[in-house]
This record gives sequence, structure tokens and C-alpha cells, in this order.
Amino acid sequence: MPAGLLSAFEDYEAALAANDLGALAGFFVPGPHTLRGDAAGLLVGSDAIAGFRAGRPGVVRRSIRSLHVRAIGTDHALIVSENEPFAGGAGLVTQLWSRTAAGWRIETAQVAASAPAIDRSIWRVAGTPLVAGEVGGTLAGVRVAVKDLFDVAGFAVGAGNPAYLESATPATASAPSLTALLRAGASVIGIAQTDEFAYSIAGANVHSGTPPNPRVPGGLPGGSSSGPAAAVALGQADLALATDTAGSIRVPASYQGLWGLRTSHGAVSRDGVLPLAPSFDTVGWLARGPEVLRTAAAASLDTDRQLPVPARFAVCAQTVFAADEGVQAAFVDAVDRLERSGHLSAVEIISLDPLADLFETFRTVQAAEAWRAHGDWVDAHPGTLGPDVRSRFAFASLIDEDEAAGHRIDLAEARERLDAALDGRILLLPSASSTAPARTASGAKIEAIRTATLSLTCLAAIGGYPAVSLPGLSVAGAPLGLSLLGPRHSDLALLDHAAGLAQGLAAGLAPDVGTGTAGIVGNTVETLRA
Amino acid sequence: MPAGLLSAFEDYEAALAANDLGALAGFFVPGPHTLRGDAAGLLVGSDAIAGFRAGRPGVVRRSIRSLHVRAIGTDHALIVSENEPFAGGAGLVTQLWSRTAAGWRIETAQVAASAPAIDRSIWRVAGTPLVAGEVGGTLAGVRVAVKDLFDVAGFAVGAGNPAYLESATPATASAPSLTALLRAGASVIGIAQTDEFAYSIAGANVHSGTPPNPRVPGGLPGGSSSGPAAAVALGQADLALATDTAGSIRVPASYQGLWGLRTSHGAVSRDGVLPLAPSFDTVGWLARGPEVLRTAAAASLDTDRQLPVPARFAVCAQTVFAADEGVQAAFVDAVDRLERSGHLSAVEIISLDPLADLFETFRTVQAAEAWRAHGDWVDAHPGTLGPDVRSRFAFASLIDEDEAAGHRIDLAEARERLDAALDGRILLLPSASSTAPARTASGAKIEAIRTATLSLTCLAAIGGYPAVSLPGLSVAGAPLGLSLLGPRHSDLALLDHAAGLAQGLAAGLAPDVGTGTAGIVGNTVETLRA
Repeated sequence: MPAGLLSAFEDYEAALAANDLGALAGFFVPGPHTLRGDAAGLLVGSDAIAGFRAGRPGVVRRSIRSLHVRAIGTDHALIVSENEPFAGGAGLVTQLWSRTAAGWRIETAQVAASAPAIDRSIWRVAGTPLVAGEVGGTLAGVRVAVKDLFDVAGFAVGAGNPAYLESATPATASAPSLTALLRAGASVIGIAQTDEFAYSIAGANVHSGTPPNPRVPGGLPGGSSSGPAAAVALGQADLALATDTAGSIRVPASYQGLWGLRTSHGAVSRDGVLPLAPSFDTVGWLARGPEVLRTAAAASLDTDRQLPVPARFAVCAQTVFAADEGVQAAFVDAVDRLERSGHLSAVEIISLDPLADLFETFRTVQAAEAWRAHGDWVDAHPGTLGPDVRSRFAFASLIDEDEAAGHRIDLAEARERLDAALDGRILLLPSASSTAPARTASGAKIEAIRTATLSLTCLAAIGGYPAVSLPGLSVAGAPLGLSLLGPRHSDLALLDHAAGLAQGLAAGLAPDVGTGTAGIVGNTVETLRA
Repeated sequence: MPAGLLSAFEDYEAALAANDLGALAGFFVPGPHTLRGDAAGLLVGSDAIAGFRAGRPGVVRRSIRSLHVRAIGTDHALIVSENEPFAGGAGLVTQLWSRTAAGWRIETAQVAASAPAIDRSIWRVAGTPLVAGEVGGTLAGVRVAVKDLFDVAGFAVGAGNPAYLESATPATASAPSLTALLRAGASVIGIAQTDEFAYSIAGANVHSGTPPNPRVPGGLPGGSSSGPAAAVALGQADLALATDTAGSIRVPASYQGLWGLRTSHGAVSRDGVLPLAPSFDTVGWLARGPEVLRTAAAASLDTDRQLPVPARFAVCAQTVFAADEGVQAAFVDAVDRLERSGHLSAVEIISLDPLADLFETFRTVQAAEAWRAHGDWVDAHPGTLGPDVRSRFAFASLIDEDEAAGHRIDLAEARERLDAALDGRILLLPSASSTAPARTASGAKIEAIRTATLSLTCLAAIGGYPAVSLPGLSVAGAPLGLSLLGPRHSDLALLDHAAGLAQGLAAGLAPDVGTGTAGIVGNTVETLRA
């Protein structure tokens, strides 16, 4: 045993037990190359590690069951330790220690802790399955995460709020949009978390916590379909049954590298789905690839009502400049590449009403409808909403009927102008104004991102248009979605165009990226001499 | 980057993708000190690692997202790699590689893979909670894992068999034994897996898989309350609501270091609980400590019917010799220590009927009752049972009523002789004939262990006695339970005696074991020079 190592290990365990952040930070080698990983991802750099520690309540108390030490030369040692949390379970830690002038310090650590029965940030209820689908069908074997706004026979709707769940009664039948999936052979694996009343696009929930974003460790998952999206991104489900009022499918799809479809307004029944703002609410889905998404859409949409849409594409400078610089660059680069490779023919530039005006009109009508749907409940249950959603409902409560009526007229006119400007073309735009913000971002920053993103996503809401978000763009390693917005009832055709563009994007990538099965294809290869 | 390391890493990933067991074994340094750990525990030695690989279907296909390499001297390197499974999620691997004459080889590895929504080997359904209890009460905050034999309002009983679940209808009310816990403030976190129809003590299920045993990596969890016990041992639940016909609570308690109580026959309502053999079936609980167990028992038993029992203890040589040698030694040592420390006064030696005769009589009556309960269903659903349970029902189907009637008379007489031999004393015996067998043990070995263990556990079944299994004994690091068997309706008093003995066992341990909070208190400290 190298001198001093065991006592350093013991001191570190004692600092963990006390959650002594200062002492803990001192045990890690300072600098950008120190690593700490667990089931939620890998943190790179001592600052990221210290930030993570500051944001958690501490480590469960535990005893060490076994310790395996490998001395490597005189100045390094690997310690593998098994621990037994006092609250049950077992943990495992692998640490690379190095002897520094200040004593033994940790260079890298991988930590496995005992997992809960289910991750409450993602799921409210889960089963194996929770509801079995019919045998056979086009969706046989597909596991569905149902957003907690849909009636599932035998279960109450919780809408992301425990007090609401408590006041709700179990549904006697499943929503028709869910029944369509079950008939096609899909099964329900669980009921997944949502931002409260779906009235947010951040993907955080003060009651159940923030789901992980497996593609951006430390990043928000996007909402309001946060739980279903994380479940699909993690491979815990294959399909999310979700809603999109003004981005609640497209934003988490963009943040997590998923496919998402917001359907044409009214194309899929909203019966048995808790409303937010009925003029804009739509049902849709998220999946890891276009095939499952298209199969779900085909099983759910009235195909007789579906219309073709020609391959005429448009972009609008305003929708590009509304996004942050990295998103602008990624979007422009993607359109350029698709044009050069022939996947997009001459893209037309169009003008739209000022986005700020459109968004203001949209959000006022949305708020008036949200208050009509939930105002009585919100008034009767003070203190039960998280601060963000509470402030949104407070704003909504102030809109009087006259004001809302005026905005409704504005909205109808704006919609006519949108129809005219698009003229049957497919609008290409970034799915969100940024990639996933950090979970630790300030409220002001989240609010600014919300405004910028909603000014993009509200276009489909205003027009009642279908919109697809496809993955394949990225900014500094974080995924970003490309959105296609098409004429009403062109949902399936839009998906087919999107699948073509996705192939074009994949083909345009460097040959060593995304093509290997087991080779080294990733973003980062970092080598250091320890 | 050390020469040859990256290509060794790539070759290893390729071997994983192909699940090439021969190649994979070659990548690990041969010998007893090589380590591989994941969420299920730490495997020690290259043989254990190869055995683990042989028993799993292979690794999910994945790409590498990032690679962090630390060269340590010339002959060692640590590689931390993030991967992206094609089926979603994210994985993390930390490996210590060493340069050998044969090339780069892995000395230690810790692997984190994407987890499913719920572990189907433990749970059928889980929620946050699944059923909320009343506010306040003696069990406030206690999360209950309900064995899948109990009615839970709104859910069908599955009994560990998917075909049975499919033919069952949702319960309109919860079983009274569950209602008692909910009234006391406990909530249901989920419905947990059982051996099929509870007709086994192994803890394996061909449909949902074998739950982990967090105290014995690679060991069986014990059954039939396998899922609830694993949930409690893992800290995913605090209390298991379970059944014990002939050991189904005491055996998993023993294998996993838990507390378990089988109640006096008839002391807790079996309404709303799927029967196996009603003459022996009892309701009971498992917990990590005696406090929660006693609170659950006090909330569920009719305290007016409970009787005191004096501190008169007995052992029977036969019940010791029925166990394997390690268990014999641990049991004798524990009784010796408890006598020397004054926790046990002079223990009397008593004689019982030959255990083999008692077991034969018991198992015949049990089988006849099991066939009466489930024979029609089993006949109507050929091919739906796993081989072990199928063969047990096949045996049961051959017992005619005359034979069963004869054994019933024998059983009543045996019970009278048991009552006389025990004479109001508390019998001390090992909770099982062995510690947890390996998951890879042969069917013949499992069957031999079953017979030996049931010859111990059937005593309480025959007498209708309550029995407590308390943890604190161990054989080669694996937990073993000490059982106390007392007069009918002495359940609570028996628990109090057991708590006293547990204190005695803990006090008798070396002062550096079990007392630290963060210090090194475990079984193993192994140091090597890499």
C-alpha cells in the first residue's frame, strides 16, 4: 500500500459523508482534465465536478465493503471500492489517485450508486408493460412513454403536479390517440413526467425533478414533453405520445437529438388529453428514428385527409437571426450542404410578420385559453405550482376577455398572412433558438431562451401547421434539430421530406463519423500523460 | 497515446460487438486479481468475468462518443470512454490497461450501461408512489413493495406468470393486509415479482428473470418473495408485503441479510391474496431492520390475540445437521457467543420427529392443496410454466384425495408432537441450509438445497408457528439468517426477542466492523502492485 494512500481514501470518504464541499474539491486534481463520471454522464474538469457537487444534497451514508488497490509505479494508484449504503443497495467506485506535492489526489473517478425503482424525474408510473397492446400490428414491440396529460384507463392524469393528481379520478378509458397506438400493437411502458400543465419548454419540474438529457450531461432536457423525451433518448421507450402547443415536442427533440412530429391542428383527436390552449394544442410523437415516428403517425392520422406537399422549400432570415450564433451557423451550414448535395433545390427566401409581434399575439391568446382551462383549479390550490408556471398563470389571470378577443382577431389575420407567405412551401428553420441550456442556467437566461425559441415554434401553432424536428445538426457537440413546417394536413408527406433531408445530412458528414459499429467515431479523443 | 493502445481498445470494442467470448477473455489479464464491476456488483478474477460473459447474450451495439486516455509510465494507461448505444442512452467505461508480453490487456474495468425504466426482474409495476397511503401514521414515509400475489386496487394479480396475468381481472379493492399498511401511512411503490405461484424458494423466474442479490453478486436472491426482498435490500423499498408458505419470506431474508417475519397461521387475513396451500399460507414482511418490521406487524396483527413468550430457548441437533458445514459452524458459533455474552440463557436441546418424514408429509399436503388451488388453470394453460414449477405441479397432479387425507392425519399428529417437544419454548435454527447459491448452480444442486432448506422451514408451516429470520450471521462473506420459531400468536414477542439477540450478535463483533460511518470496515482490503 503506497504510503498515505489509505488515509487519503479514508479522509475522502469522511469528507463525502460530511458533504464538505471545500474538502471534496481539494481531493480532485485541479484543472480541465480531471474526470468524474456516473450513470448521468461524464463531467470533465474540476470546475464542472465542483459545480455538480454544489447542486446536490450530498452522498448517502455508507460503509466500505471491500477495497482493491493497484499501485502503479510510485506516484499512481487505482482504487476499486465496493460500498454498502446504510439505506440499502450497493455502490462501486473506481478512482485513479496520483501523488502530488500536496498529497494524494484523484485524477479520474467513476461512481455507481444504488438506483431507485424508477427515476421519478422521468416516470410517474412504469410497468413491464403497464398496458399491453394488441398482438401483432405495425407497432408490435414498440414501447410507448405516455406524457402525463393523456387518459390511460385505470390511471388518473397528474399533469406534472401532485396536487392535481390527488384531485383527479382514474380514467375509465384511454384517450383515442393512445388507443390507436395500442391497436397497432404498441404497449405502454409508463406514464412520463411533464412540465406542470405543459406550460413551459424548459423541461424542469419542481416536484419530480429535472429529467436527464443523455446527449448533454448537465443540460436541460427540454419540455414540456420532458419525461417522454428522456425515456426515448435513454432507450427506456421507443416512442413518446406527447403534445405540442408551441414547441413541447420539437424543443425536447432538438435538445436530445430525437425525431419529433407536431401534427396539424385537429388532425389527431385531443379527446382524453388535458388541454393547455385548445386553439393550439396538438398530439404528436417523438422517436429515435423516422421509421417508428412515421409508423405511429400513419396508425394515428386519418390518411384520407392527408395531402401531398411538393419539394418546395423556403427559409426566412428572421427565423435564423432569432437563434443564437452557433445555431445560426449550424443551420446555414446544413442548408448549404443540402443544397450542394442536391437534397434541396433552390431554397426560396420569404418574409414573415415580425416574430416579436406574432409571439406576443400568440402568447396572449394561449394564456387566456390556459386560464380558461385551469384558472379555477389554480385559484383553488394556491402554493401548489412551481414559480415559473405560477408566474405564467398569474400573467394569464390578468387578461380580460376583450383583450383576448382583440388578439384572436389579430391571430386570424396573422394566420392568413402566414398562409400567403408560405404559399404551400415547406419552411426550414432551427427547431430551437439554442441547444440545451445548462440545468444551472439562471432564471433570466431560461426566460430569454424561452422567448427566442417560442418565437420560432409558435409559427406552427399560429398556422395550425404540422412540423417535424429532425436531428443531425450540432453546436459544440450538443444536438440541434432542423424543423420542417408544412401546409396543414401534410404531416406524412412532411415526414417523408424530412427523412430525405436526414439522409442528405448524414451523407454529408465526414466518413469516419457516425458510420462505425465499434470503432472510434466520437467527438473527443483526449490523451494525457498522467 | 501509448503505441498499440488505441488499436487494442478498438479490437476490444469489436470483440464486444461480436460477443466473441474467446477474444474477450483474452483481453483481460488472467488471474484472480482482475476486476470487472457494474451496477450489479464487482466480479473478482478472470474466471468470474468469463463466467459472467458466458451467461449473458452480449453487449448492445454502440458507438464511442469520447475517449480520455491517461498514460501512466510506459506500461499502464487508464481509458475513460463514453459510448452511445444504438438503442438510446449513454454508457461509461473506466479501464486500467497494462502492457504485457502479449500486448495491452485490461486489469480492471468499471462499466455503466443504460438502465431500463424499471428492472423487470424485480418489479412488474412501479410508481412514485403507485398507491399513496393515508397521511401520517406509524408507517409514514415507508415505501412498500407488494408481492404479486396481493390484490392492489386497480391492478390484476400476475403471480409471476404472464399468462396468468393476462387471464386475471383488476382487483376492485386492495387486500386487507395491504389496507392495514396504507392506513398506517405506508405507500405502495410497486408490485414486485415472485417465483411462479410462489411455488419455489430459489428466487428465479423464467419469464421476468432472476432479481439481483445485492449482498452476494452472482448469487440467487431466494424466493418466492424474490422481487420484494431484492427491492428492500437495494433500498428501492423499505418494507416488503409478502407471503411465506414454507420459507418464502425467511429464505430471501437469509440470502440477502434482511429481517423477515412469517406470522402465525391465520393471524393476518389472507383475503385478497392468491393462495398456494391454504393450510400453510401466511402473510408477513421483510425489512432492513427490526423497527420497520415490528411497526408493520403491530399495524397488521390483532394485538389482543398476541401472547407473550418467555425467554426459554431450544435448539435441535437435527436442524443444525440438516444445513451445510459452513452454516453449521456459523450457527453454533453464534449461539455460543450469545450464551457467553448472556443474551441467551442455558439453551435446551430438544428432539423432533425425523425432518425427512416431516418434510415428506408437509410437501404432499402442500402439493395437494396447490393442485386444488391452481390445477384447473395449469391444465388449461399448457406450456406456460417454467420447468421447475411445472414439475412441481406435475407431482401435485398425481396425489389422489385418499393419499392427501392420510397425510393430513399424519400432519395433525406431527403438529401435536411438535407442540409437545417445543413446550412453549423458542426454537433457534438456521434460516436456510446454505447461503445464497450461485445463479449458475445446476438444477440438481438447487433441488438438493431446496429439500434441505424446506426441511428446516417447514417446521413453522406444520405448526402454524410464527418465525423471525434476523441477519447477522455470515459464511465466507455471504449473509445467513438466524431463525426464531415461537408459539402460535407470539409474533410480536418473538420479534422483540429477535431484536435482543441481534444486539447481542452485533455487540459480539470486532469493534472495527460495522461501527464506522466512513472508515474502512469491510471484509476485504487487497493491495497489489500493478
